[in-house]
Amino acid sequence: MLQFNCDYNEGAHPKVLEKLVATNLEQTVGYGEDPYCQAAAELLRGLCHAPEAAVHFLVGGTQANLTVISAALRTYQGVLAAESAHIHVHETGSIEACGHKVLALPSGDGKLTAGQIEDACRAHVENESFEHTVQPKMVYLSHPTELGTLYTLAELEAISSACRRWGLYLYVDGARLGYGLTARGNNVTMADLARLTDAFYIGGTKVGALFGEAVVLTHPDLKRDFRYVIKQRGGMLAKGRLLGLQFLALFEDGTYEEIAAHANRLADRLRETFRAAGVPFLVENTTNQLFPILPDRVLAELARSYSFSYQQRVDEAHSAVRFCTSWATDPAAVEQLCGDIRRLCATNQNL
Amino acid sequence: MLQFNCDYNEGAHPKVLEKLVATNLEQTVGYGEDPYCQAAAELLRGLCHAPEAAVHFLVGGTQANLTVISAALRTYQGVLAAESAHIHVHETGSIEACGHKVLALPSGDGKLTAGQIEDACRAHVENESFEHTVQPKMVYLSHPTELGTLYTLAELEAISSACRRWGLYLYVDGARLGYGLTARGNNVTMADLARLTDAFYIGGTKVGALFGEAVVLTHPDLKRDFRYVIKQRGGMLAKGRLLGLQFLALFEDGTYEEIAAHANRLADRLRETFRAAGVPFLVENTTNQLFPILPDRVLAELARSYSFSYQQRVDEAHSAVRFCTSWATDPAAVEQLCGDIRRLCATNQNL
Amino acid sequence: MLQFNCDYNEGAHPKVLEKLVATNLEQTVGYGEDPYCQAAAELLRGLCHAPEAAVHFLVGGTQANLTVISAALRTYQGVLAAESAHIHVHETGSIEACGHKVLALPSGDGKLTAGQIEDACRAHVENESFEHTVQPKMVYLSHPTELGTLYTLAELEAISSACRRWGLYLYVDGARLGYGLTARGNNVTMADLARLTDAFYIGGTKVGALFGEAVVLTHPDLKRDFRYVIKQRGGMLAKGRLLGLQFLALFEDGTYEEIAAHANRLADRLRETFRAAGVPFLVENTTNQLFPILPDRVLAELARSYSFSYQQRVDEAHSAVRFCTSWATDPAAVEQLCGDIRRLCATNQNL
Amino acid sequence: MLQFNCDYNEGAHPKVLEKLVATNLEQTVGYGEDPYCQAAAELLRGLCHAPEAAVHFLVGGTQANLTVISAALRTYQGVLAAESAHIHVHETGSIEACGHKVLALPSGDGKLTAGQIEDACRAHVENESFEHTVQPKMVYLSHPTELGTLYTLAELEAISSACRRWGLYLYVDGARLGYGLTARGNNVTMADLARLTDAFYIGGTKVGALFGEAVVLTHPDLKRDFRYVIKQRGGMLAKGRLLGLQFLALFEDGTYEEIAAHANRLADRLRETFRAAGVPFLVENTTNQLFPILPDRVLAELARSYSFSYQQRVDEAHSAVRFCTSWATDPAAVEQLCGDIRRLCATNQNL
Repeated sequence: MLQFNCDYNEGAHPKVLEKLVATNLEQTVGYGEDPYCQAAAELLRGLCHAPEAAVHFLVGGTQANLTVISAALRTYQGVLAAESAHIHVHETGSIEACGHKVLALPSGDGKLTAGQIEDACRAHVENESFEHTVQPKMVYLSHPTELGTLYTLAELEAISSACRRWGLYLYVDGARLGYGLTARGNNVTMADLARLTDAFYIGGTKVGALFGEAVVLTHPDLKRDFRYVIKQRGGMLAKGRLLGLQFLALFEDGTYEEIAAHANRLADRLRETFRAAGVPFLVENTTNQLFPILPDRVLAELARSYSFSYQQRVDEAHSAVRFCTSWATDPAAVEQLCGDIRRLCATNQNL
Repeated sequence: MLQFNCDYNEGAHPKVLEKLVATNLEQTVGYGEDPYCQAAAELLRGLCHAPEAAVHFLVGGTQANLTVISAALRTYQGVLAAESAHIHVHETGSIEACGHKVLALPSGDGKLTAGQIEDACRAHVENESFEHTVQPKMVYLSHPTELGTLYTLAELEAISSACRRWGLYLYVDGARLGYGLTARGNNVTMADLARLTDAFYIGGTKVGALFGEAVVLTHPDLKRDFRYVIKQRGGMLAKGRLLGLQFLALFEDGTYEEIAAHANRLADRLRETFRAAGVPFLVENTTNQLFPILPDRVLAELARSYSFSYQQRVDEAHSAVRFCTSWATDPAAVEQLCGDIRRLCATNQNL
Repeated sequence: MLQFNCDYNEGAHPKVLEKLVATNLEQTVGYGEDPYCQAAAELLRGLCHAPEAAVHFLVGGTQANLTVISAALRTYQGVLAAESAHIHVHETGSIEACGHKVLALPSGDGKLTAGQIEDACRAHVENESFEHTVQPKMVYLSHPTELGTLYTLAELEAISSACRRWGLYLYVDGARLGYGLTARGNNVTMADLARLTDAFYIGGTKVGALFGEAVVLTHPDLKRDFRYVIKQRGGMLAKGRLLGLQFLALFEDGTYEEIAAHANRLADRLRETFRAAGVPFLVENTTNQLFPILPDRVLAELARSYSFSYQQRVDEAHSAVRFCTSWATDPAAVEQLCGDIRRLCATNQNL
Repeated sequence: MLQFNCDYNEGAHPKVLEKLVATNLEQTVGYGEDPYCQAAAELLRGLCHAPEAAVHFLVGGTQANLTVISAALRTYQGVLAAESAHIHVHETGSIEACGHKVLALPSGDGKLTAGQIEDACRAHVENESFEHTVQPKMVYLSHPTELGTLYTLAELEAISSACRRWGLYLYVDGARLGYGLTARGNNVTMADLARLTDAFYIGGTKVGALFGEAVVLTHPDLKRDFRYVIKQRGGMLAKGRLLGLQFLALFEDGTYEEIAAHANRLADRLRETFRAAGVPFLVENTTNQLFPILPDRVLAELARSYSFSYQQRVDEAHSAVRFCTSWATDPAAVEQLCGDIRRLCATNQNL
């Protein structure tokens, strides 16, 4: 069985493991205050052109999201997010468990627009019963989104302006950031994110680390006392250096972008194969997740040799599914899959 | 200015005040354990044909909702509700502040269907990542709904069956229950609610009390330790008898239904007047809230003499608004309003 | 049975009821934005010499406490309080339910000292693992305390200075404030409280109202968006004027202090009687709660005719109990109790 | 600088790393449902003689504690714990952030007694205002405790009986369980813990793993839906096998106990050296944490070459500090420290 169901089936990029092994018996202080975490934070600040940013390393994405959001909001404030947002539909209500409402906005492609944000804020303040409703105070984006789409720099700038005009924090979930930074057509850099957002995280778990997300905080309100919140929410790793070491391994010589680009190239190869076979997509994108719409019969055939994940039913005979490539995907596995796609789609006239 | 904006502009029905005055200097134990609360609970149990039910009196509706819901749910469980549900859009995220997600379902008329509930439950258990999503465990309905509509007995029975099949609690918010019980065409009784739900509340605040909602709990899981939750959430009134006394006044000789029927008759009078004048409604209903769609120019005229509340924009020139009658509405005020409607709508051909 | 178990056995002072009856059928806007609430707030601002203060009216004390505290604290911050504090031992963990730890400090008489607060703050910042502990951010006092004791003005000034030095909010629970303001030896005024604290509340429920507490906020951080928190926590009364009207009745012509002084005089009468009979007290105080230590045999006798509340066991044969007087206590009932105390204590040599 | 300040200064035991490296490029499903987690769970169930137990792997101790406790308690319930309990003083109020009060009981040696638990339960049910107080529903112990002490089997059996009699869950925090299981005089096994508790965790982070704690749940109420809570609280590791693999490495051939015994032997060596030098201890124990009381001057000398952690001031000239050994401690480092202790204490007559 070849796995295309997600981008976290394997362990870590070998460079990551090497660094963990090499430093294993060193003695350092715990809880993220060791020299490796400091060096990794400094490295990321440099790459983000954000010398004042605070950088904290957390084990996973749900934890990063709930820690940032609960650190930012007062009890009656909520976070605007696309209805497909990970925090809205895929984290078991973790934000609500911290007391905050996710204010979901409709979105076909996983993205929000500056206009939607402005409208939501205006509707709130113009509501004669505004105090009876949750106050929007943060915007949550993912980049790439859960549908693999990307914001353009212009879109992000417009959203950032809207947030600043209305006094909202802008937070970007970068669980798959590497795959976004290296995608065809992407024009957003880490420095742009640091400049335009108040907080974002650079995903390691899905891009070559064993685990780990680097939270970058630029807004002073969010930086203050953030470590208390990490500890309170269970996110302070005793041997914090394990996180710093992994980010050093991924970023000190460009490995992060290199391995993400590898995944994107393979995704493009798959994308072209589907397209050539006449297979439509649920959504167009250029990152490592593909959402082809296939006949259920074809899916049943593919499922014998490949794992992929179910996305949604499209009509009686077709479903959208998700194929992921990753830093670890073997080009040969992709070629085998491409062959089977061509074969199965050729024999299925009625796609 | 004549007030039609809501049904809680005045104090209480005179019988309620009389009882408070008559008992004022009696000494009773506090916190709802006095003889008046016991008598009122017994009275309501009788009216509900629910001798085993627990009845608790709370000051207001938001408090009733958050107390029942937080008593019922474990931390990862959520409550299904219409997207227009009061708990979703009009209680400042109080359910989320207790840690629970409101799982909003689309609804044009404020009602949910048994089918929607079944679909949501089925989608949850069939989701391969079900543990990454909030588990539906309760259904919240309002009867009448926020749009003044009513469930038929058959609809409620179907919803109740769906809930029992899937192991969900069914909870009905009866903030305006009196106006539902006495509406034209209603075929749902308090005994039906007690039989078909696990918890519901009988609204006093909007139907003749100074304040107060009677929570009726029939499911054993909800009855257990409920008073701890009331206290913890700030809802345990020191002089609890004030609540028992008011419900005695309203229910011991039929006043509750009598005054609600008064409001409904006046609402019908208004409804017919709008209809005769060719005014469409946002939603059809038979209770004390009306949602006519009127030209903005007409609304501006009406706003000089009447208060009403804004509901939503319908098109460039028209808005839906809400007019409420109540137990305290003066028929003469309604007649004056009817006259003005006829006059203004006659001169506005293009409604 | 004559009730001395608490100070909320009766309804309201007649002036309160009269005002509710007189205004009953007036139409006002809801949720505390009516002219009566505005007038009451203005009146209290004047009495507090605090023209900039925000005044909000809530139904009960637990609700006032949890609303103020959850509005003030970030998620990892806690509130310092005496180990006997109402929020620590008598509100079913309502503060914890809002996510905050009560940092309990030892106290024999229900009071905290400035020194204890300074020590707690210093210990926090000097702790090498400070981020692994809850950050003290607020001090909760009650005045009178749960043991009926009072802070002197000098003590309050020292505590206020300590709080400001360390960046803590100072919050005073005045559930029985009237009985404190009018106690022998008290030298603290409402204006002092407004000047020295960031928030306090003036208790109505135990001092002549049907229900109601007036929260006075002077710190800008606490004033901002406070109504959202009230609504979210279930504390926004639909017919908010009921609260404003009661505070107007109590404060517009001095009734509040007058009726509290009545209770204190009767408490003094009881206090002298116990003392003359050789009965010791658990704690010395001058307000409407007395904590005599009596032989269990005497308590069993008294319990036949009087209700009082159990406080704690003192030794094998003695317990401390609480007797309360109130604005509604009948002097004749006090005389009867005094007679029985003299009689029973005379025949119990071995007190 | 030689580190004796804690037992998590290094990475992992080499066997742990080897297993991670050997399996690195295997593809497995995520979120703890892979074969390695299943095998590790099965292995631990066997070692615990608990074939019905559920075993879940979490990254850290605070997360394990808050996940178990929030899964177990209803909103108004609290957890009894020693006042020195990690959840009470060293996890930034994480339990309170989940809405629950830690009900702290006094303890000189970090342990609770069955009698204390019974008394607390009895006091709760006998309290006439019991619904105004937090309901005790769980007991939290740590074994070894934060002071390195151990429960005897008889003590644990008595506590377990008390919990079952009163309907409380018993939960044991085994962050340092290995050091307890292999301590001189210990007579408690993992099978005993599985038999006597409702939940406990086997600590990996401090006993040879990079990170990881194995939560063992035996009570059916706690097992149900536990994975939802893990996910909601941010504790579900995407590459869950990293946890399973580590526990396999530690337990499949006895490494866990072997390396813990190593630490205990070195702790005993230190303990004897302190004792021979006439140094008293804050508390007597037999595990890998020592709490000697030393003159501040001696501590200043030791701090030049050794790290240790500050515990508490004992008198003007003496403080208690903590020295830890671990699975990774070098015997030569211990010998060097022993030498310095003998030298410094000999020259400090007045210990």
